[in-house]
Amino acid sequence: MKFYYNPLSQPSRALYIFLKMNNIPAEFITVGLQTGEHLSDEFKEINRFQKVPCIVDDDGWKLAESVAIFRYLMTQYPQISTNWYPSDPRTRASIDEYLEWQHNNTRLGCAIYFQIMKKIGPFANQPDESFLHIFKFLMESTLETFENVWLKEKKFLATDDEISFADILAACEIEQPRMTGYDVFEGRPKLKEWYERVKDATKGYYDEAHAIVNRIIAKSQKAKL
Amino acid sequence: MKFYYNPLSQPSRALYIFLKMNNIPAEFITVGLQTGEHLSDEFKEINRFQKVPCIVDDDGWKLAESVAIFRYLMTQYPQISTNWYPSDPRTRASIDEYLEWQHNNTRLGCAIYFQIMKKIGPFANQPDESFLHIFKFLMESTLETFENVWLKEKKFLATDDEISFADILAACEIEQPRMTGYDVFEGRPKLKEWYERVKDATKGYYDEAHAIVNRIIAKSQKAKL
Repeated sequence: MKFYYNPLSQPSRALYIFLKMNNIPAEFITVGLQTGEHLSDEFKEINRFQKVPCIVDDDGWKLAESVAIFRYLMTQYPQISTNWYPSDPRTRASIDEYLEWQHNNTRLGCAIYFQIMKKIGPFANQPDESFLHIFKFLMESTLETFENVWLKEKKFLATDDEISFADILAACEIEQPRMTGYDVFEGRPKLKEWYERVKDATKGYYDEAHAIVNRIIAKSQKAKL
Repeated sequence: MKFYYNPLSQPSRALYIFLKMNNIPAEFITVGLQTGEHLSDEFKEINRFQKVPCIVDDDGWKLAESVAIFRYLMTQYPQISTNWYPSDPRTRASIDEYLEWQHNNTRLGCAIYFQIMKKIGPFANQPDESFLHIFKFLMESTLETFENVWLKEKKFLATDDEISFADILAACEIEQPRMTGYDVFEGRPKLKEWYERVKDATKGYYDEAHAIVNRIIAKSQKAKL
């Protein structure tokens, strides 16, 4: 299987960690987002939506969308530890609830805030401050919902004792605003504790996937001093 | 099971059709979005995210997010016809691919365009035309992707011969811009054919779920004349 990704893409990092944690054999192929490699005709043959992450299975079968890829891998690799997506229907439904909710909350809020601040994506040339305000509001509402709803009584987002795929995906998303110098943990102790718990549970793979991200975060923190 | 919904909410309508088509026993409870019923403390106890659709199972267990609800129902009701989510992992993955893709494409484009045009939601008081342009662009890109990618060689979005849940969800989404007088089918013959195919496959339930929507569309078309 070929896994196409970029370390600046948050769902790419989530799948990177998931593949490594579960010893799923894959050829890891970096796609240059900054150089526009994903927009080339060649890459369009790999993913018709021209985004990362995506996979091409051994026989050439293709799949895009991180959550769809995660679900597909669950059906293909029996060695995957059950904690990532337990078979109990209600536990699975609670994980699904987060995986669907995140698109227009965590993902939209954190990723668009990051894009506006870094002047990339569809809002790059938007001088109007109101865009930033709306997406900052959405991002902060999302972070408050993490603190006061998702993590109110639980150690992990959708499960009690063990990490699930929802946690990796979420943690990777909240790294995006951190790269702009925004402190997602300020005034949110539960979020911080959960984040450390996720990192602990993913061994060294979390940091391995975030090598470039961590350098950008360190730089943005230095710039603030 | 209690099913909370509103006929103006596109995923509510999709689940309404799915429940009816598969004879899933449920108490259908309308939640007044225009009156702000979803924002009440009482409804917060039913869905902590204060949105529709959501379900409360017989023993009080709660679940939000239409796609998560759909998946959960698939595990609970053996009478559900297999075409909605066939068990073959790759067919299922292709459906999943659409179900994840739609959030920040169909859903974001069509729903936000509708909200801006109708002056509801977070963009209600936004006088800046650039918001409208961005979301109109996203909506039209999505509709082009339906025409030229999803429906390029297929009768349905993710499956070849029979309708899946992806099709109902998608059809319900593209009704949102239709309510503003926008003709989603103009210059998109495959989209129109697919739409008729979806309606045919959902018997009278599609029209039943869209009674109010159809009245709004008829009114907006009359206003254009």
